[in-house]
Amino acid sequence: MMIGGRHFRSVWLEGGTVRVIDQTALPWKLAILDLANADAAAHAIRTMQIRGAPLIGAVAAFGLALAMRQDPAALQEAAATLRATRPTAVNLAWALDRMVARLAGLPLAGRADAAMAEATAIADEDAAMCAAIGAQGLPLLAGIAAAKGRVNVLTHCNAGWLATVDHGTALSPIYRAHDAGIDIHVWVDETRPRNQGAGLTAFELGAHGVPHTVIADNAGGHLMQHGQVDICITGADRVARSGDVANKIGTYLKALAARDNGLPFWVALPQSTLDLEIEDGVAGIEIEDRGDAEVTHMTGPDDTGALHRIRVVAPGSQAANPGFDVTPARLVTGLITERGRCEASETGLRGLYPERFAPQR
Amino acid sequence: MMIGGRHFRSVWLEGGTVRVIDQTALPWKLAILDLANADAAAHAIRTMQIRGAPLIGAVAAFGLALAMRQDPAALQEAAATLRATRPTAVNLAWALDRMVARLAGLPLAGRADAAMAEATAIADEDAAMCAAIGAQGLPLLAGIAAAKGRVNVLTHCNAGWLATVDHGTALSPIYRAHDAGIDIHVWVDETRPRNQGAGLTAFELGAHGVPHTVIADNAGGHLMQHGQVDICITGADRVARSGDVANKIGTYLKALAARDNGLPFWVALPQSTLDLEIEDGVAGIEIEDRGDAEVTHMTGPDDTGALHRIRVVAPGSQAANPGFDVTPARLVTGLITERGRCEASETGLRGLYPERFAPQR
Repeated sequence: MMIGGRHFRSVWLEGGTVRVIDQTALPWKLAILDLANADAAAHAIRTMQIRGAPLIGAVAAFGLALAMRQDPAALQEAAATLRATRPTAVNLAWALDRMVARLAGLPLAGRADAAMAEATAIADEDAAMCAAIGAQGLPLLAGIAAAKGRVNVLTHCNAGWLATVDHGTALSPIYRAHDAGIDIHVWVDETRPRNQGAGLTAFELGAHGVPHTVIADNAGGHLMQHGQVDICITGADRVARSGDVANKIGTYLKALAARDNGLPFWVALPQSTLDLEIEDGVAGIEIEDRGDAEVTHMTGPDDTGALHRIRVVAPGSQAANPGFDVTPARLVTGLITERGRCEASETGLRGLYPERFAPQR
Repeated sequence: MMIGGRHFRSVWLEGGTVRVIDQTALPWKLAILDLANADAAAHAIRTMQIRGAPLIGAVAAFGLALAMRQDPAALQEAAATLRATRPTAVNLAWALDRMVARLAGLPLAGRADAAMAEATAIADEDAAMCAAIGAQGLPLLAGIAAAKGRVNVLTHCNAGWLATVDHGTALSPIYRAHDAGIDIHVWVDETRPRNQGAGLTAFELGAHGVPHTVIADNAGGHLMQHGQVDICITGADRVARSGDVANKIGTYLKALAARDNGLPFWVALPQSTLDLEIEDGVAGIEIEDRGDAEVTHMTGPDDTGALHRIRVVAPGSQAANPGFDVTPARLVTGLITERGRCEASETGLRGLYPERFAPQR
């Protein structure tokens, strides 16, 4: 997508150099990092200079390609090093497995070029998948705009192009609608405690020129009560077989408010987010507690631009920080995937992804 | 209530001096202000050194008493000056009207002493009313503790003793339960954007020794889904004839989550919070937009204790900031008042406050 009129991806190859946007500097500074070698790629993943499951997978693939330039014999070691950076990221393991499978049978001399080609393919495929999510979601927004002249979308957290290679998931239909000339405005939940909405989503939308307004996470219900929201679209971290959706903490509260106000609540995801092993998302999806510092402290610039880390909780008080919650499928109007839209249910998912379900006996 | 083992009120008379706790310095510093004259009282109200509707009324009353020490002939002028500090605060006008009615007929020489006595009575009555709310709410907590051995309460914003003269509204039953030896723990919503939960409620509870944990406003639904909340209690800014509750933005989302998880959601209020002129709270209660700076910036100390005001929203992005929302009566289990508990409905309110309803024909 665009930053100041220039097209960017979140990872790209430029004259043989792998480049990424340093997301730890956003939204205060647009800093571009050259990943000189696999260690730099591993460091970028580990320190969350890049984040978002699809992007982690793509950067790991480029990291392995950089390792092949240095020592094509060290395929397994390099893959293991990269794999250890974010052990729970499912896309990381998937991308590295794909790279190793592609490269292991090749002569050493051919690995570097083949690796860079495969990493590029992984990135291109992710961008294409996100573009397809945008195309599948667009009719929802176009339909509202046709009826009302304007669309107000509410989103939570960052499911934008910075979390993927390009386009994003929840934001992909929004960018597509905006680029198509639809009058669209986005309510951006700030998304405490890490503020991915106020930081990354607002940055993305602003840089691309999409009208948006940041709100406290507390405000969405009130806006829905007063007709200021037409539709909610969020991303997902994991979607269970039943259609239950694990996403950033607080998503469930917005789904409840949408239901109470008769508003559609959609979840956008690529199929890599499906976890068909889990039936009941509320009972079955483990929620990580991310430690209290994200709640007790915040970082940002003062008026001179100097960054400070300040305490925002009373001294001596403890905090808890569950990172995600699960929105039961009954509150989800539907899922937007690269293959189409479906009901948030096993029946809905089976219709789009028949090959991923075991044959019924 | 207690701070470090010493009993405090939020406004008190000490050797003829009117003292308040400077709430703009909390939770980082306990600063006590001597209000030397009516101007100092007006300044404290205007700059929110003291806040909370009941406390504003009491401090205004003391301010008028200080004015009577200086010039007992200037009763109306002093009342007008104090009244203009927070024009929408209903308790402010109520307290000043009461003071003027008490003093206007007195000889000038008697006004100063009578004024200080009346202000003291207003403060004492507020403290007694809040203590009664605590007594009326205690059985709810005691009942849960009897059944489960422990009570987990979730609260939103600050409806504690700092918002009143003593005890608070929503927190009054909690203090009473804790003081009675009930094993109670409070989940404190940080309450963006002004963070009254993370700042004032956490400070109050910590200073009094009540176990508590601060959470992002996003987290409550998840905790309720997983059995970590037994009951919600909040305060109210205004309660309509129907029982609809206007309170700090985000209250509605917690009421929805409580309903979805079969948990009780109670609202504590003194009768001064009732607005029987309004029937439908969602349609009828005007919600003030407090301006975007509360959302875009936060203030707190760094590790050295130096305070900084930092930006927390992407540069160039706007914010919206509705200050309150309305929780429909259908989501409220009941109201806790100084006269008892009732259903959140006209029928319930009529039972407790028959004299406030016009005779039925």
